[in-house]
Amino acid sequence: MSIEKDLGEFDRISHFFAPLAQGRKGAFSLTDDGALIDDVPRDGSMVATMDTLVEGVHFLTASPPETVARKLIGVNLSDLAAMGARPHSCLLSLALPRNIDDSWLASFAGTLRTMQDEFSFAVIGGDTVATPGPLTVTLSALGHIAAPGRVLRRSAARPSHGVCVSGTIGDGALGLIAARGGLTELDGNDRAYLIDRYNHPRPRIGLGRVLANLAPETVGGVCDISDGLLADLGHIGEQSGVRFDIDATRIPLSPATRHALDRDPSLIETVLGGGDDYELVFTLGDTSPGFIEKIIAAGQVDVHVIGHADATPKANDDGIPLVSARDERGERITVIHPGYSHF
Amino acid sequence: MSIEKDLGEFDRISHFFAPLAQGRKGAFSLTDDGALIDDVPRDGSMVATMDTLVEGVHFLTASPPETVARKLIGVNLSDLAAMGARPHSCLLSLALPRNIDDSWLASFAGTLRTMQDEFSFAVIGGDTVATPGPLTVTLSALGHIAAPGRVLRRSAARPSHGVCVSGTIGDGALGLIAARGGLTELDGNDRAYLIDRYNHPRPRIGLGRVLANLAPETVGGVCDISDGLLADLGHIGEQSGVRFDIDATRIPLSPATRHALDRDPSLIETVLGGGDDYELVFTLGDTSPGFIEKIIAAGQVDVHVIGHADATPKANDDGIPLVSARDERGERITVIHPGYSHF
Repeated sequence: MSIEKDLGEFDRISHFFAPLAQGRKGAFSLTDDGALIDDVPRDGSMVATMDTLVEGVHFLTASPPETVARKLIGVNLSDLAAMGARPHSCLLSLALPRNIDDSWLASFAGTLRTMQDEFSFAVIGGDTVATPGPLTVTLSALGHIAAPGRVLRRSAARPSHGVCVSGTIGDGALGLIAARGGLTELDGNDRAYLIDRYNHPRPRIGLGRVLANLAPETVGGVCDISDGLLADLGHIGEQSGVRFDIDATRIPLSPATRHALDRDPSLIETVLGGGDDYELVFTLGDTSPGFIEKIIAAGQVDVHVIGHADATPKANDDGIPLVSARDERGERITVIHPGYSHF
Repeated sequence: MSIEKDLGEFDRISHFFAPLAQGRKGAFSLTDDGALIDDVPRDGSMVATMDTLVEGVHFLTASPPETVARKLIGVNLSDLAAMGARPHSCLLSLALPRNIDDSWLASFAGTLRTMQDEFSFAVIGGDTVATPGPLTVTLSALGHIAAPGRVLRRSAARPSHGVCVSGTIGDGALGLIAARGGLTELDGNDRAYLIDRYNHPRPRIGLGRVLANLAPETVGGVCDISDGLLADLGHIGEQSGVRFDIDATRIPLSPATRHALDRDPSLIETVLGGGDDYELVFTLGDTSPGFIEKIIAAGQVDVHVIGHADATPKANDDGIPLVSARDERGERITVIHPGYSHF
């Protein structure tokens, strides 16, 4: 569809996005100055998150609309998962360069529809503007939790806790390398798997809700892995005043990531320090096999115990890292730049 | 401050923005994956809005940080005003080009602080990312209303209603012309006034709350004027199924805008069709002078009656515009491009 024949702003909103507000009376079909949220259960609370993705920074230039939509929704719902919240609604802002046409928007909205069917949220508002710069998309996700006390926090890790992760670690960071043309020695299936993991986060909403419903003395600090395993576990340590020891041999790896590590063991630094996995890292007061099995069954995603809190009390600036990872010989693995910083 | 010496993302958030979360326990000092909202009164509801501003599109290139902050907060709170909501909190996303340094962020955050003191909201979350493109800022504002029925809507105009506006009209659009170097025949004070009106919206929160508390049979359709008086009143007409007749001689004008019109009467099209006033346009079942005086006193902003609903029933595509404006001779004023479309 040519630019000249594209719909104007108001027609674009009513054509592509208003259908995503269906079933939410308070969204007013996106025709008003704001949305009314009057359907949160009276005994619950809301959780709010916001994430922005910039073309060429957070997703590859010329990514298809399906990838942009899945990544945008995925990273925000992953934050809700880390808080133990159930998705409720979202506000969507699109800053669109000239080359984005109606067929692009149709595919983007179609993927939003697929994800809202999977995760039960509505698009209740937002903004669409033109930009002379790169495609820039922002989502604010609203979730709800059963009661204020049932919110998950980074600050709840204790010195007696074990450390767990969901899914597999390192796929996102290796997927970015593969998407940029690297890891060419891997076979096509492995590369495709890793690229898919980078492009398409699976927010662990179900696991987050399972953790939020554990007894308060059992559930610990929780964070989603966006900056990298060591950095995000470090965030838990920072907020909880606790250090951690990680056994790198126990970190769950996908077959593709294992194949990559077999060929280049130095990639362990990328696995530990790279981001974009959107799994959950969390601490628990009970890491017995039977208890972990129950969490796996209820959360519908694999969970592995990868380490434990360090008995060393935390003192600022004593040179000991918040998170130490050790290899199969028990030696500390040094990661030069743990975590992704956007600046 | 040089880029090399600037703070990293996490330090920037804790240094500049965490203080803006003070007093909201659920914001967790911006250290968690999301914010908890558990302080909304149980008998109330929330309203959510989102607006994005792009440098060079919605504000002039190289605008000072104070202007960007005031405009971003202003346009979002103006949406809350149009819904009759009281500001509660906001989420802030900044996509920052390389030339934005810590001193810029310090000024930006300082203005946010000034505005949060005036309007009583907290910054409870958000995102900061790097962009190779123009500065792009997004705010999602959350407000609350006393009860679900007390939300203002665009759809509540009735054929018996009069049309009112707050403040003065046309200053924003003329201010943009002046800021771009136009209207040089005006004196310096007039130009400065208009540029200030373009840069610094005054959200009419107080008036919105007064309107929301009127008897349901008195209050009508409400919209804030961002796209332009005719376009935004047209939005009310569209959603309410009502047409309007406006008497252009009754539109309240600032002395600066009057001076500009005296020199160039054709600017009336800009006054009627241009945007960025961030006043409220609304319809009322009672426009008697005594009633309007009460609204002015309670809302702490001037209000003028500028027209009335048209008895002609609305039929789609009959060629009659939703809003007709007439000049002092009663002749229809033609506005070629009413309203600002971002595409």
